Amino acid sequence: MIRRVCIVGCGAIGSLYAAHLARVAEVYAFVRRREHAQALQRDGIRVTGIDAFHSQIRATSDASELPPCDFAIVATKATQAAAALSACGHRFDGGAVLSAQNGLGGEEIIARHTRAYVLRGTTFMSGTRHSDTHVQYELDTATWMGPFEPTDTPFETVAEAAELINRAGLKAEALRDARPAQWAKVIFNSSVNAVAALTELPHCPAFADERSFSSLGHLLHALIEEGKSVAAAAGVALHEDPWKMNCLGARTNHPPSMLSDIRNRATTEVDFLGGAIAREAARLGMAAPLHTALYRLIKGKEASWSFDQENQHADEAEHRLHATNH
Amino acid sequence: MIRRVCIVGCGAIGSLYAAHLARVAEVYAFVRRREHAQALQRDGIRVTGIDAFHSQIRATSDASELPPCDFAIVATKATQAAAALSACGHRFDGGAVLSAQNGLGGEEIIARHTRAYVLRGTTFMSGTRHSDTHVQYELDTATWMGPFEPTDTPFETVAEAAELINRAGLKAEALRDARPAQWAKVIFNSSVNAVAALTELPHCPAFADERSFSSLGHLLHALIEEGKSVAAAAGVALHEDPWKMNCLGARTNHPPSMLSDIRNRATTEVDFLGGAIAREAARLGMAAPLHTALYRLIKGKEASWSFDQENQHADEAEHRLHATNH
Repeated sequence: MIRRVCIVGCGAIGSLYAAHLARVAEVYAFVRRREHAQALQRDGIRVTGIDAFHSQIRATSDASELPPCDFAIVATKATQAAAALSACGHRFDGGAVLSAQNGLGGEEIIARHTRAYVLRGTTFMSGTRHSDTHVQYELDTATWMGPFEPTDTPFETVAEAAELINRAGLKAEALRDARPAQWAKVIFNSSVNAVAALTELPHCPAFADERSFSSLGHLLHALIEEGKSVAAAAGVALHEDPWKMNCLGARTNHPPSMLSDIRNRATTEVDFLGGAIAREAARLGMAAPLHTALYRLIKGKEASWSFDQENQHADEAEHRLHATNH
Repeated sequence: MIRRVCIVGCGAIGSLYAAHLARVAEVYAFVRRREHAQALQRDGIRVTGIDAFHSQIRATSDASELPPCDFAIVATKATQAAAALSACGHRFDGGAVLSAQNGLGGEEIIARHTRAYVLRGTTFMSGTRHSDTHVQYELDTATWMGPFEPTDTPFETVAEAAELINRAGLKAEALRDARPAQWAKVIFNSSVNAVAALTELPHCPAFADERSFSSLGHLLHALIEEGKSVAAAAGVALHEDPWKMNCLGARTNHPPSMLSDIRNRATTEVDFLGGAIAREAARLGMAAPLHTALYRLIKGKEASWSFDQENQHADEAEHRLHATNH
């Protein structure tokens, strides 16, 4: 019986879980910034968009203030999960923890920091975060969830958590095997995010255009086919066709999270997206040249930000005039 | 007998040719900007660096002011060659025209616009352009030149042009087949330029680093191997090892021209570098997935500049806060 829930990370997705679950359980938010915790504790969370309501919750940035919880949802950026869980993971011992992070590898990080049953999760819902305490709910698509194999999570635990999320007014589906949904999303996500990060284009019609030799749609198609071949070698039959997901998303002009990261010079989630596919392929002894190439380019792009700082003496004006033959 | 020479395009490389050749022939520069022509006509060209001298030359941006020339060197950016040659190409009819542009495909463009013998050229010299009339000479490496096959250029014509360039104080080598030098440089150049353009790193030690899975050196190595396999399929045995060229260049922290273009939002030469390798592979019926992928990313990056302008209504502040789960 789930009575107390902890939401780890309150971005757009975490805020949607926290506000909804507060209707059916006692909800704590565990967040990184102290001001964020104070604002949540004081003002709660306001939801607008396809639903409109307000929830009061408890919130802290200090794990010692967090009571034991029966159930947690990890909704941090994948890059921040290890830091968050190493602080609060023990509060979930004996309970269950759902990963709602992007990509592959999040469940492994969670399992390293808690003695709880871990649940694989993939969420297709979306929202826009307008402030620390205001989230706009956009797509009410489901969270797909299933057992994380290494913790031998019972299916009943998955079903109970899914039932709670549904009762809270969100959509969740308990699956015996959540990998087909997770892999479909990670293939879609890693392909679209990597191309957006490197071109600085949002997810726009060019991503599905295959009319000429230089068209980006050819590259997206090849990335997705390569990802599917890695999934097949890993024994995962996909839940949805990532190419169809790409063609739908390409109509939205939505800036993927990795593009926002690049614009803000913030470390991207590439290690959990294309990097995870590349490493999985290497582990399986197969080639994934495109995901591997784009992974290395994005790591190089991240490195360029500190290169600039370390080489401040480089004269920008000279760079502009410098024109040798290579 | 070469008496009158035209240098088409006076960037760093064109300026070095013009200033040196003015010692042994009558030199005209044909340039795009009127102010540039006026400055050259008035002040000539000052060379500093590993050599130091001044040359007076003639210059114009109006092809009707250009007399017939026995010999021309095309040193524009590859992207500007068609516009330049369509204006001035007929002034070289019956003479010889050397391509000193980056990449592949420049000779074909020249041949389309003149009834001259065309010469394949690849220059390894380098300089920094400090102003319209001042160039710093840096590397005095040779220009490799040979016949362009479709115009049946006699070897004697190549030898005469090389002799003139040598007499002017530069280094040139006449070859029966200039493709091995041209392909070695284009493989090096397309690999290094594409990675620099997409990561925004200059040609730095990371380009030769292969210590970890995410290291960029692996990508450079794979790009170069792929380029070599396309050259082999095209029947070209390389003149130098592009990987060794990369390892040497990676010590310089030099910003490749395509990185400067990206910084200035100027159309890059990618169609003549990675794009040319990708198309050549497609023509030969073979795969060149990495050069093709990076080519499409760079075309996408160029497209992003006009996408931004067409979508000015997009609220940057909202982008920063927008954090959905993909």
